[in-house]
Amino acid sequence: VRAQGRHWRTIWPAADGRAVEVIDQRVLPHRLEAVRIGTLAEAVAAIAGMTVRGAPLIGVTAAYGLALQAAEDPGDEAMAQAAQRLKAARPTAVNLAWAVDRLVAGLSGVPPGHRARRAWQDAGDLADEDVATNAAIGRHGLSLLRELATRCGGRRLQLLTHCNAGWLATVDWGTALAPVYAAAEAGIDLHVWVDETRPRNQGAALTAWELREQGIDCTVIADNAGGHLMQRGQVDAVIVGCDRVTADGDVCNKIGTYLKALAAHDNGVPFLVAMPLSTLDTGLSDGLREVPIEERPQREVTHVRGRDARGADAEIQLVPDGTRAANPAFDVTPARLVTRLVTERGVVPATRDGLRALGSAA
Amino acid sequence: VRAQGRHWRTIWPAADGRAVEVIDQRVLPHRLEAVRIGTLAEAVAAIAGMTVRGAPLIGVTAAYGLALQAAEDPGDEAMAQAAQRLKAARPTAVNLAWAVDRLVAGLSGVPPGHRARRAWQDAGDLADEDVATNAAIGRHGLSLLRELATRCGGRRLQLLTHCNAGWLATVDWGTALAPVYAAAEAGIDLHVWVDETRPRNQGAALTAWELREQGIDCTVIADNAGGHLMQRGQVDAVIVGCDRVTADGDVCNKIGTYLKALAAHDNGVPFLVAMPLSTLDTGLSDGLREVPIEERPQREVTHVRGRDARGADAEIQLVPDGTRAANPAFDVTPARLVTRLVTERGVVPATRDGLRALGSAA
Repeated sequence: VRAQGRHWRTIWPAADGRAVEVIDQRVLPHRLEAVRIGTLAEAVAAIAGMTVRGAPLIGVTAAYGLALQAAEDPGDEAMAQAAQRLKAARPTAVNLAWAVDRLVAGLSGVPPGHRARRAWQDAGDLADEDVATNAAIGRHGLSLLRELATRCGGRRLQLLTHCNAGWLATVDWGTALAPVYAAAEAGIDLHVWVDETRPRNQGAALTAWELREQGIDCTVIADNAGGHLMQRGQVDAVIVGCDRVTADGDVCNKIGTYLKALAAHDNGVPFLVAMPLSTLDTGLSDGLREVPIEERPQREVTHVRGRDARGADAEIQLVPDGTRAANPAFDVTPARLVTRLVTERGVVPATRDGLRALGSAA
Repeated sequence: VRAQGRHWRTIWPAADGRAVEVIDQRVLPHRLEAVRIGTLAEAVAAIAGMTVRGAPLIGVTAAYGLALQAAEDPGDEAMAQAAQRLKAARPTAVNLAWAVDRLVAGLSGVPPGHRARRAWQDAGDLADEDVATNAAIGRHGLSLLRELATRCGGRRLQLLTHCNAGWLATVDWGTALAPVYAAAEAGIDLHVWVDETRPRNQGAALTAWELREQGIDCTVIADNAGGHLMQRGQVDAVIVGCDRVTADGDVCNKIGTYLKALAAHDNGVPFLVAMPLSTLDTGLSDGLREVPIEERPQREVTHVRGRDARGADAEIQLVPDGTRAANPAFDVTPARLVTRLVTERGVVPATRDGLRALGSAA
């Protein structure tokens, strides 16, 4: 998609071929800057510190991290350790482990001397596939949105999204926002309610930014407000991304997603989850019991970052000195609350049978 | 209750008897400061600008505002205009209109020359009654919490609250927190999850502050996190205040309350609403259709205030320049999601019959 007048991906090979560059998502929306990732350690730090975030994008970043390691030391032990470090950088999104395992599998029969080139190639393929996958999610989601729009009787289609599952969460297009971009391009009149998404404000900082850069009308709301809007008939559908989906269709996504799914269910609003099949964890069934939930630093809750009156980056404290905070980063929305899963292979119910009908995931 | 080593109310007559003083809730938790309200206009501004907030406290502040007007010009027209201005300062909490109407009714047979003294007396009575009302809510709520604590099998009782319905929202004790203070005093081992409560952060700034000052163990969480905690069995009860309750038991309270009520219902967690009977609007039945919801400034969503690294008050911008925000300040929780109403006259189901059993409200 486009931002500030040109086309961007979130991650791309550096001109010298010895590193990748990524958009630094910690300084958006106030500055659009790229940072260079030249080593495995830098890739791990970029994932853990959320320079890059979004399940698909951290998968691709991890793949490039392995490629950078292979350029340094492609030996079996070093590569196995690198895979382990990357997977441990963030525990919840399964795309990270999926991408690492795929790269490792691709390298298994390759002699160490050829691994660097092969890994670089595979990481690039993964990035390109992600773009194609999201474009396909966009096409399938468009059919759904078109149908919803016809029921609006002339008024514009009102969507609500949580966190950022746009192009910034992927290599390009996004998952939840791919259908939105496709719908806008198809001429459907729409508006997006953007959940702020505390504590890191990915909605207010990232989703609002990319929608506005793309010319999509949107309004930021506190995370508390979505239920009220649904009660008032001001939301025609909720569409979100995901970090891990179980074989039975339970959806793990950014903390707070479950609350919006409850409100959607209570008000008869379709709750749509955009899911690349790389996010499906066929080994799990009960999301609530089985998906590991990352606990992030307290400071993300007790403090908040933004731009001060002089235009400088600033971090302020919201709570009394010494206050404790808890910061679970994800929650699980039971399959019963999910109206449809929108995948690159089509739209299915959030059930084991629905997912099986799509064929094998990986 | 106590803070910084001494006893406080949120509002008290100034020593010279020509004004009231209030705790400035805009600068908490970083500074505990009082400001003087000496005119009707200052009372209106303190209510609209949220120097004082909380349904019971804005009622008492409005009563003193009328008394200040009566000292200036106690004529019928001036008093009627003052009543109108005070009621319009914030539209949702019915306690404001209730307090104003009560003062006006008390003055109706009083000759203008005696109105100032009578109004001052009535406002003081209202403040004292609020303290007694909340103490009674505390006693009735304590019975409920004691019962819940016995089911905890030795581990501490875990409560969750949204926004601030503590002593800062009233004259003293609070509504939702009165039972918490009573339970702590009774030796019940408990812990409170405090919803941050965007956009104005009354939970992070006010509830965390007053609980900590009172020595109650608490943890601040993003508004998104409560559902997840309930799914994991980490919440034994939710207890909140309210701004207007209909005759059928629908509860209007701070935006986001409805989402927590849905999660409590979905997980079998008791959802308790502490309600002084001054918050009951017997004229309304369907909260969703009938309660006016205040829309507050966009800037409360697009910006946030706190303390910067140098210890100074600071406001930072969270969104891209030019981003639109919506800021509905309240939502309505349907009676079907409310387990019990805790009033000064006892604990009742959130039904017309339950409320009728308490007798007349005003």
